[in-house]
Amino acid sequence: MNVGIISTGRYAPKLVLDNKRLEQLVDTNDEWIITRTGISERRIIAPSREMPTPEYCKENSLNYNEEMWKWLNETENVYYMGKMAGENALNSAGIKKEDVSLLVVSCNSPLFVFPSQAAILRKMLSLDNAEPWAITSGCTSSIFHMKFIDTYLKQHGGTALSICPDALSATVDWSDRNNCVLFGDSAGAIVFSEVKEGGIQSYILGSKPSFEIALRTGLENQTINTNPLEFSYKKQIERPYFYMNGNEVFKFATRIMGGSNDYEGVIVEALKACGKTVEDIDLFIPHQANDRIIDAALKRCKINRDKVARTVDRYGNNSAASIPVALDEAVQEKRIKKGDTIVFAGFGADLSYGAAVVDWSY
Amino acid sequence: MNVGIISTGRYAPKLVLDNKRLEQLVDTNDEWIITRTGISERRIIAPSREMPTPEYCKENSLNYNEEMWKWLNETENVYYMGKMAGENALNSAGIKKEDVSLLVVSCNSPLFVFPSQAAILRKMLSLDNAEPWAITSGCTSSIFHMKFIDTYLKQHGGTALSICPDALSATVDWSDRNNCVLFGDSAGAIVFSEVKEGGIQSYILGSKPSFEIALRTGLENQTINTNPLEFSYKKQIERPYFYMNGNEVFKFATRIMGGSNDYEGVIVEALKACGKTVEDIDLFIPHQANDRIIDAALKRCKINRDKVARTVDRYGNNSAASIPVALDEAVQEKRIKKGDTIVFAGFGADLSYGAAVVDWSY
Repeated sequence: MNVGIISTGRYAPKLVLDNKRLEQLVDTNDEWIITRTGISERRIIAPSREMPTPEYCKENSLNYNEEMWKWLNETENVYYMGKMAGENALNSAGIKKEDVSLLVVSCNSPLFVFPSQAAILRKMLSLDNAEPWAITSGCTSSIFHMKFIDTYLKQHGGTALSICPDALSATVDWSDRNNCVLFGDSAGAIVFSEVKEGGIQSYILGSKPSFEIALRTGLENQTINTNPLEFSYKKQIERPYFYMNGNEVFKFATRIMGGSNDYEGVIVEALKACGKTVEDIDLFIPHQANDRIIDAALKRCKINRDKVARTVDRYGNNSAASIPVALDEAVQEKRIKKGDTIVFAGFGADLSYGAAVVDWSY
Repeated sequence: MNVGIISTGRYAPKLVLDNKRLEQLVDTNDEWIITRTGISERRIIAPSREMPTPEYCKENSLNYNEEMWKWLNETENVYYMGKMAGENALNSAGIKKEDVSLLVVSCNSPLFVFPSQAAILRKMLSLDNAEPWAITSGCTSSIFHMKFIDTYLKQHGGTALSICPDALSATVDWSDRNNCVLFGDSAGAIVFSEVKEGGIQSYILGSKPSFEIALRTGLENQTINTNPLEFSYKKQIERPYFYMNGNEVFKFATRIMGGSNDYEGVIVEALKACGKTVEDIDLFIPHQANDRIIDAALKRCKINRDKVARTVDRYGNNSAASIPVALDEAVQEKRIKKGDTIVFAGFGADLSYGAAVVDWSY
């Protein structure tokens, strides 16, 4: 049995934040950003109202559970983006919601630890027959999804919907000019099922655990007093933003993607795993963190520049969403035809990395 | 190929918080707690020092990444508990770290959104050959692990370590007498591999998405102004605690576990899926949320009271850790012998639920 991609979808917020506007928020400029990152603009969510709290609902005799679902469905938030991307993916291939048996969701910018991202999107999308799995591994999440879904469908059958929504705008420090220029919000979705031709050919996943990227969640409440009668849970919530050591991440990413003296890199490794070479690539879809990382990978792997899908100029680094969003854009632009070999490669927080090779089925 | 359990382990903090001591923290009493929950005491983590911040490290010329790993390895925190439980599980069966090919981690009380729980524990345990998967679904997580690991190992082979550490003490509201009495901290671990006899027989997973249990993460920073020049990210971080509607969760849990007029319940459903009945149960290991939920399940399913593993009296509700901790305790107490049929059943945040049947292999 071969498992392949049968449909894609995406959602991007309407609000465009370009470099000129960013110049008015932090001490930066268009040229500096473009030279170092290739990013011209990014999309940002704009919820129309605040999330209801249990206290607010109690005071106003409202049902908290019902109000939360209303807020999630009616305002632009990270789950709303995921819902829209998922619906677009299902609609573009005419897949019925009741036929989705597996839902896999990754989100690096969740609003809750629980309910899980997958449980929330299952409800919002009315996927009543879908088993909800929340599997997140930084910006590499979409590659983890491919391995999980290939493995799962081969054993249990069915149709899988993978959704990666991310809104790092909600956790980035907007006073940190080195980081806030890099990220944008959007969501991508991919539908997988049994295919007669093509499908997922190989995947490589790796991990080099490190705090070079760390997102503090405001959960760092620690008992620092061992006398239980004197509990003093200190709230270190003054720092909910995330931390990134850009230089270290750049070094990691260029080596992982393009290889180095002692490592061939994840792109070549995934191609080898299915008996292919760089010459077989029809479209290369890398994680969209930075133009310079993408260019370094192209150069080191000797991939032709016209074979790459690029969205980083218009979306910035949209985290786990970046690969499925770039894929959907390429599908809509008719850059992919049946039989094409697509190579996906990603890296990100954790630090995680991975690549997958997919032969296009439609 | 059959996939089965080959080893177990657990870790519980030394600090015991009993009901008498709780009486001094909130307006409650031992009798009230025991009558309604069956809980006499719970374990609580006691980190010896605060987590380092990037700012602290910069000011003191320390490497943030290195300081974080030191803190994680040297103080009692949720990841430290996971490491200890994982090591105990590996040691008790003499499994070498290099032979672990798959690491699956669930944690409902993470300190970070990224690095993922799995990436962190991979490093702390030096599991250099293990693929790290972070898969969390509330207190049902350990059942999700069983399905994932059975599916994964059948296709890719190898040895899997499942770890569920949780420290809800760090996020519970210690001024809320209805909730803070219920939870405790600990970690459980299970090793899975190919087995010649017995193994995982069936699993059932379900989801009824709801905010009856919701953990706000301090990430609810929302753009509520659509003018990008007037970004006003409001930090709703005054409420990092989690919310639980105890009555609704109780109704959900008793129905899911024990069944109702229109549903046979997850225990019977999982047994049927592998051609067994309640009479075949040698040991029943439910999620340890509340004695009354366990007793209702025993009564409705007609399971003999001496067939149940109970830890709730001494650990409270230890979240995702509860099922693997109860399993390890039963193994150490020699309550399980080769060929025994073990039924696991859980429910929790999301709302998720599930059950699995495992025939014991050693």
